[in-house]
Amino acid sequence: MSYNTFGHMFRVTTWGESHGPAIGCVVDGCPPRLPLSEADIQPWLDRRRPGQSKFTTQRQEADRVEILSGVFEGQTTGTPISLVIHNTDQRSRDYGDIAERYRPGHADVTYDRKYGIRDYRGGGRSSARETAMRVAAGAVARKVLGQGVRIRAALVQVGALKVDRTRWDWDLVGRNPLFCPDPVALAQWEELLAAIRKDGSSIGAVIEVVAEGVPAGLGAPIYGKLDSDLAMALMSINAVKGVEIGEGFAAAALTGEENADPMRMQDGTLRFASNHAGGILGGISTGQPVVARFAVKPTSSILTPVPSVTRSGENVEVMTKGRHDPCVGIRAVPVGEAMMACVLADHLLRHRGQVGG
Amino acid sequence: MSYNTFGHMFRVTTWGESHGPAIGCVVDGCPPRLPLSEADIQPWLDRRRPGQSKFTTQRQEADRVEILSGVFEGQTTGTPISLVIHNTDQRSRDYGDIAERYRPGHADVTYDRKYGIRDYRGGGRSSARETAMRVAAGAVARKVLGQGVRIRAALVQVGALKVDRTRWDWDLVGRNPLFCPDPVALAQWEELLAAIRKDGSSIGAVIEVVAEGVPAGLGAPIYGKLDSDLAMALMSINAVKGVEIGEGFAAAALTGEENADPMRMQDGTLRFASNHAGGILGGISTGQPVVARFAVKPTSSILTPVPSVTRSGENVEVMTKGRHDPCVGIRAVPVGEAMMACVLADHLLRHRGQVGG
Amino acid sequence: MSYNTFGHMFRVTTWGESHGPAIGCVVDGCPPRLPLSEADIQPWLDRRRPGQSKFTTQRQEADRVEILSGVFEGQTTGTPISLVIHNTDQRSRDYGDIAERYRPGHADVTYDRKYGIRDYRGGGRSSARETAMRVAAGAVARKVLGQGVRIRAALVQVGALKVDRTRWDWDLVGRNPLFCPDPVALAQWEELLAAIRKDGSSIGAVIEVVAEGVPAGLGAPIYGKLDSDLAMALMSINAVKGVEIGEGFAAAALTGEENADPMRMQDGTLRFASNHAGGILGGISTGQPVVARFAVKPTSSILTPVPSVTRSGENVEVMTKGRHDPCVGIRAVPVGEAMMACVLADHLLRHRGQVGG
Amino acid sequence: MSYNTFGHMFRVTTWGESHGPAIGCVVDGCPPRLPLSEADIQPWLDRRRPGQSKFTTQRQEADRVEILSGVFEGQTTGTPISLVIHNTDQRSRDYGDIAERYRPGHADVTYDRKYGIRDYRGGGRSSARETAMRVAAGAVARKVLGQGVRIRAALVQVGALKVDRTRWDWDLVGRNPLFCPDPVALAQWEELLAAIRKDGSSIGAVIEVVAEGVPAGLGAPIYGKLDSDLAMALMSINAVKGVEIGEGFAAAALTGEENADPMRMQDGTLRFASNHAGGILGGISTGQPVVARFAVKPTSSILTPVPSVTRSGENVEVMTKGRHDPCVGIRAVPVGEAMMACVLADHLLRHRGQVGG
Repeated sequence: MSYNTFGHMFRVTTWGESHGPAIGCVVDGCPPRLPLSEADIQPWLDRRRPGQSKFTTQRQEADRVEILSGVFEGQTTGTPISLVIHNTDQRSRDYGDIAERYRPGHADVTYDRKYGIRDYRGGGRSSARETAMRVAAGAVARKVLGQGVRIRAALVQVGALKVDRTRWDWDLVGRNPLFCPDPVALAQWEELLAAIRKDGSSIGAVIEVVAEGVPAGLGAPIYGKLDSDLAMALMSINAVKGVEIGEGFAAAALTGEENADPMRMQDGTLRFASNHAGGILGGISTGQPVVARFAVKPTSSILTPVPSVTRSGENVEVMTKGRHDPCVGIRAVPVGEAMMACVLADHLLRHRGQVGG
Repeated sequence: MSYNTFGHMFRVTTWGESHGPAIGCVVDGCPPRLPLSEADIQPWLDRRRPGQSKFTTQRQEADRVEILSGVFEGQTTGTPISLVIHNTDQRSRDYGDIAERYRPGHADVTYDRKYGIRDYRGGGRSSARETAMRVAAGAVARKVLGQGVRIRAALVQVGALKVDRTRWDWDLVGRNPLFCPDPVALAQWEELLAAIRKDGSSIGAVIEVVAEGVPAGLGAPIYGKLDSDLAMALMSINAVKGVEIGEGFAAAALTGEENADPMRMQDGTLRFASNHAGGILGGISTGQPVVARFAVKPTSSILTPVPSVTRSGENVEVMTKGRHDPCVGIRAVPVGEAMMACVLADHLLRHRGQVGG
Repeated sequence: MSYNTFGHMFRVTTWGESHGPAIGCVVDGCPPRLPLSEADIQPWLDRRRPGQSKFTTQRQEADRVEILSGVFEGQTTGTPISLVIHNTDQRSRDYGDIAERYRPGHADVTYDRKYGIRDYRGGGRSSARETAMRVAAGAVARKVLGQGVRIRAALVQVGALKVDRTRWDWDLVGRNPLFCPDPVALAQWEELLAAIRKDGSSIGAVIEVVAEGVPAGLGAPIYGKLDSDLAMALMSINAVKGVEIGEGFAAAALTGEENADPMRMQDGTLRFASNHAGGILGGISTGQPVVARFAVKPTSSILTPVPSVTRSGENVEVMTKGRHDPCVGIRAVPVGEAMMACVLADHLLRHRGQVGG
Repeated sequence: MSYNTFGHMFRVTTWGESHGPAIGCVVDGCPPRLPLSEADIQPWLDRRRPGQSKFTTQRQEADRVEILSGVFEGQTTGTPISLVIHNTDQRSRDYGDIAERYRPGHADVTYDRKYGIRDYRGGGRSSARETAMRVAAGAVARKVLGQGVRIRAALVQVGALKVDRTRWDWDLVGRNPLFCPDPVALAQWEELLAAIRKDGSSIGAVIEVVAEGVPAGLGAPIYGKLDSDLAMALMSINAVKGVEIGEGFAAAALTGEENADPMRMQDGTLRFASNHAGGILGGISTGQPVVARFAVKPTSSILTPVPSVTRSGENVEVMTKGRHDPCVGIRAVPVGEAMMACVLADHLLRHRGQVGG
């Protein structure tokens, strides 16, 4: 069972509610003797932290990660690594409204139907705050993968506005709060998001994650496929409604000729002429970049009132006031990278276990 | 680990190669006292069987399933159900070419890189033949779900041609070999596929799976989400490159207002005015139909020669002769239904275990 | 994989080293709406706490447990319950000796051989301190089981001195720090342990755990047997070298007639005339008390020097100074109860998932 | 969940009932390119086969194993290995008696209480026949371990009669159907078993399994301990009531001085002067022989009538006629070896995955 655990050999168990005393995770199965300190994890958390631009929630979180176990004298010991972030922004306030009213598009109603109880403060367990621990675990996963594997993500679509791939600039991604690789799209998105924000509305987005340097051979048939584990991992991120690998849904419109990735030997090495497959064939990595994309829905927290019901069965209108995130897809960028890192680290250890090397 | 096992409480382990003596699966964790015989499974297999139209491979397979364990006097006993299909269409022939040449877009190269060995006959383990056992397991899963849950799938796109949802007719789906719900699209597809077939080409497709009658409360945070398990399950089907739930990738272009699913009490029951969410909120079923789609790439087995390499590192051109499947997405329709059934059965038992009822 | 995770539907993941900042665990899969607070857990921890008698280590630990997640307004929510105990007794001292010298009978040498690194402070991860979190998780498991299931354990052998079962008194167990059910044995053990302690020696012990009120039907063939899960759980406790169910090893010397548990209907209920089986047949509970015993070796920390080696390969003599535990079996009593509780809770949920009810 | 699956990276799923058409198993996670054919498995099965001496059941089973998948041109491919044995000794007979009457000491009553249905023919799923597949899987596990690891088992106690370890002769074990290492005990056991058999009675036994050549470092804290996995594996064998490692229960009566295993460097290698620990410290192998013992109860199938009840709640006397096994412990010897092999193979792959090498 894996309610709150992710991975097989590189395992991450997360816990915590948005407004509880802390959130945390346990990373189990990490190889020993990897250099690790809070300083290796904190920068990745800082990238995800809200309040960094006017287009993400203004909630202020210090998000200082602490390592409580599994590291000794600056190195991993092979025992479980416990990471914790104390919640410092727990405003004492009246939650009465949220307690009773189901916010449309949120998990309020389903948690209540399943468990008959829910921690309604700030979304409780279903809050995007949980993704901070994914980012923390992803930082450990990057250590497992080593410097030969490079994982980067970018926002490639906001609303209907897609980036132009001929203008793709990875350096730009690191220099703008929207993780946009295209200067023209960046300007368009800023305009769009300003309007969305002004309206108290929200908008969806698509994120692309690319892992370069992934060795050939990771993954396994039939239910240990690298792409199916990626699909699971990315779909588990809050608000994600779709995942695709390589050409993805666009492959449906292609012919076999158009979708083919020809191979050739070059200087004794097998090379692919293209990467429609997204770096995975038959569930196993080819050695090409692994390319995944995922779609994030517009958050349901909007200023326009939406018909809803209360816990006790009354019809109401629900409008979300307060902190507001016009495009939750933006903050999903570092989370997508982290999930890619965790999946790859898990498969690296699984592959080494079965096949060696 | 789950190389060839799928699910947690309702677990399916498949085995077998395309041209070995048999393929099979073990279904473990099935509740006791469910009526079950081969007659409950065979019709689902017959729907998937190749050779039923000119648009799927002409390979003839009897595909007679046998129950070897776990059923006594017509009822499941709660012990593992072993299902087997003997391979009757194992032509003895020369595989020399396939043994050496990597078919582009197939798993030949990755299996070889991972394992250093592969059963090259008919694709071995990576053959779509494995999906027959998913369909068999899905038939058992339907028994677990009971008659209140109805799972159906249809082809919704072939190449660039999508169905018109205003003409959707579930009855039509059962009456045409393309599982098409739209009579107009059906005619277009037949024309397109005839051309594709004549050219020795292939084309991609999109399948939609709908589960009605799913009780609210199935699924769990954070890594036991119903949608992430569905994503894993559907992405594990051969040739699938994308999975989406509800609005899916289209949600990226929507605003929060457009994507909202308003709720209202009607006659004492909570009703949703729309189902953009695809029946899942926060990873837990809402009680609405669960809607998933997945994209299948065009098969790489085409008559046009594609540059490739041999096992020993020589450049060659590879062209696929013999049996030919212009649109592998067609046969993925019953497989998608089966995976939906298995995921829901697993979550039903998991939910009952944790929460009861 | 389950390096530091235990259980399937009721899952416990523990983390932490003896002298790190904290130890903790995550309990996942717990049913919702169970009343739970620190006050439900602390008393069980207090029973296990060292320093309560002269026969256990004098290390003083406050061992105050904190609930960090999964509980809301006094009830479990169905989400992961994070429990933590901060280490307050971390004396700053010189560990140079322990760092280099392998204590015979301890995990120093094997951790080093496996991982190439170990947190040597106080035994690090291999310290019995980890068992505090098992006791905490066991307290949650008892809530899952409800008041109908009663789990108690007693020390039944210290050195060669066994209790006389005709004098068994459960009330006495709760009133003496040795958890002894026999007043005569108690006096003998106190004398023996005083001598062992004076000599700087140590001695082994046997613990018996009895669970009453366990419903018939828990467990499952073949690798989900209740007794094999108990064996795994009890053998995982530090210093345990043997586990037995019912008659256990004594069954080897019995005939089928002697070992038989006759059945009879009494007032419409099936009754067993004896319980040689220890409440389990074919891996499934019979409804009788589940009876398990486990043997704990004498701790290797003794004042007599024992030949050993250093990390760098020099021969040395190792003698354990400082805090001393003449019979680690004593503190294993509450731990054995906790493991029984966790195994039963897990199987209760698994049973309910597969079979219902 | 692991109802019928055993292991993590080297995974075995067994299926089948005693009198169904076949029994089988799926071995998943096996490394590729190991030479494997039926001829590697059959000899181990032959050792376990009943009917080889007058002291085991006279049921005649050909027990011919077939490999249905996962092997290509004489080598494992890394994909699941499906093994099957067809049941050839399915006498058509009247099971009416067994169907209604619960055999005391058997799983009849518990299966019925759990599932509400059971395949009563020959014990169904709870029959010792299932252990044939463990032996088959064990033969594959031996391939994974390689020739450097030698696993042998012997019967060390029948009834109250133990072997004299000063006379231990491994060669003798292979030359007598009782797997006895001591010529004197062998003669005593033959006499005892003849009497037991004549009386229609049965007797218990203890088996010792020894694995030599196990590399240091296998196993893992805390719930991945090598000894706790061995305990689970051995306790899961039919009729086993106790498991111990090294000194086992005898350790309870020892002092720390008596139980110590001193270490010394010899020619640059760490050596232990004794092996009270049974080759495992802190759950991790030391490099010494891994030594485990398990106790098997006397079978409950005896000629003396024992009070029991029927399915419908009537009091009856049950006496077991027909094929008779005076000491089921004998046939458990090869099964114990197989479980040791499977556990070690699993931990070898797990270790390689996490730590490499």
